[in-house]
Amino acid sequence: MSVYFNDQFVNNEEALLHVSDLSIQRGYAIFDFFRTVNGVPLFMEDHLDRFYASATAMHLTISKSREEIRNIVQELLQRSSLSEAGIRLMLTGGYSTDSYHPAASNLLITCNPVKTATANDFEKGFSVITYEHQRQLPHVKSINYLMAVWLQPLLKEKQADDMLYYNNESITEFPRSNVFIVTADNKLVTPAHNILYGITRKNIIKLAADIMPVEERNIPVEELLTASEIFLTATTKKIIPVIKINDQPIGNSRPGPVTAKLFERFLELEKV
Amino acid sequence: MSVYFNDQFVNNEEALLHVSDLSIQRGYAIFDFFRTVNGVPLFMEDHLDRFYASATAMHLTISKSREEIRNIVQELLQRSSLSEAGIRLMLTGGYSTDSYHPAASNLLITCNPVKTATANDFEKGFSVITYEHQRQLPHVKSINYLMAVWLQPLLKEKQADDMLYYNNESITEFPRSNVFIVTADNKLVTPAHNILYGITRKNIIKLAADIMPVEERNIPVEELLTASEIFLTATTKKIIPVIKINDQPIGNSRPGPVTAKLFERFLELEKV
Repeated sequence: MSVYFNDQFVNNEEALLHVSDLSIQRGYAIFDFFRTVNGVPLFMEDHLDRFYASATAMHLTISKSREEIRNIVQELLQRSSLSEAGIRLMLTGGYSTDSYHPAASNLLITCNPVKTATANDFEKGFSVITYEHQRQLPHVKSINYLMAVWLQPLLKEKQADDMLYYNNESITEFPRSNVFIVTADNKLVTPAHNILYGITRKNIIKLAADIMPVEERNIPVEELLTASEIFLTATTKKIIPVIKINDQPIGNSRPGPVTAKLFERFLELEKV
Repeated sequence: MSVYFNDQFVNNEEALLHVSDLSIQRGYAIFDFFRTVNGVPLFMEDHLDRFYASATAMHLTISKSREEIRNIVQELLQRSSLSEAGIRLMLTGGYSTDSYHPAASNLLITCNPVKTATANDFEKGFSVITYEHQRQLPHVKSINYLMAVWLQPLLKEKQADDMLYYNNESITEFPRSNVFIVTADNKLVTPAHNILYGITRKNIIKLAADIMPVEERNIPVEELLTASEIFLTATTKKIIPVIKINDQPIGNSRPGPVTAKLFERFLELEKV
């Protein structure tokens, strides 16, 4: 598998960073991730928007133009011959001379086989727990997943599939997914603030617009208990119903009708 | 310069991690750092204690015993011929197969020339700003310095040397240093909770014990303004007086007598 590393294509085994890179020294780096359907990148422009915005927010510079990145992605896809690939754009703080201040960023673009959620994953749904935590610089897709990785043993212990973060008594997001609820009065609601703005989230908001009222606003933790449906959205997970929160069943522990309808529409969207 | 990388000594240029390492993918790694004085490691056992404790807290395993690490450090020091060296112990989340769950950790130990604070740095002191932030898993010396690195442009703009974090209206620590204040009633006080327990901090608490009462407790932000002296402690900075906070002078903008006394005692301690 080829990897694009700064100015060249290298073999995967050669995608190596020196330990002085600020990603390794101080966890300072950003990334973005999208996938292809039948060899065609899905929502790539949205992901590029976010990648450049993350870089700017982190005071980092991407040495390539969007057009150059599009071409690199095409080249990686051709070399890989994958029809369903995951493309990861990575930009680090670079080889810092003092282990603290950023230097010229290292840019890496990888292309690997990707496993997306299946109809079976959708039917099964997710059992989740809530956890009080606020991601730092939430609008930025940084590599800071310290809490998410650290909490994996807790998830296992609780036999949960993921944790829904909350902060100041409002829910925000999952470590790698956004959250939506269908309220008691039949509105689709998703948190507005302190989150990473997901590309799937954006598409779901659009797709739902002619089905029901959609609101972006604070969602108090206790509102989860009166929700008729809850689901999460992410690039590889697409839409996954949340059927249990902290051992409390949601709806009738089955994917709800709104979730199913949006899933159907989303699958149509990604075919185009 | 040699680097110890898993089971061997390699040249610095060969200290390379594959991008699949969880430090690069998810900022998941720990480290510790100590220095030598005349070729002798300073407070190494304390740093090893903390390194092993950080690993345990992060569910990571160090594949070497303390005795093995001591021997590796000695070998690196001999190879480097440095009398004043900085030793960095690094342990990462390893080459993750799914970019999310830890694998066998990579262990790296580097030995480089180190610049410590001078008598002139002590005389000059630090001008600092306060900033509301709480480090995640504060007792763990993880590589998560996202906010610290991100805030560097703000420091520059404010012409400040460092930022003192506070949370819930109490001060905690600097990104890489602990804080002490001499109170209006002549006690030495340092925050007790939500901090990384520095090795220099520990030594200062001991050294101060026969000079004045020492307390570890919460310090409200407003107590900074009534402090007669403030200083920070860290491995390479040793002790640096804080002479200004948010443009407010502390003491008479000069190192205070308690700070000077402790600095003198600390310099004696590191000679032994």
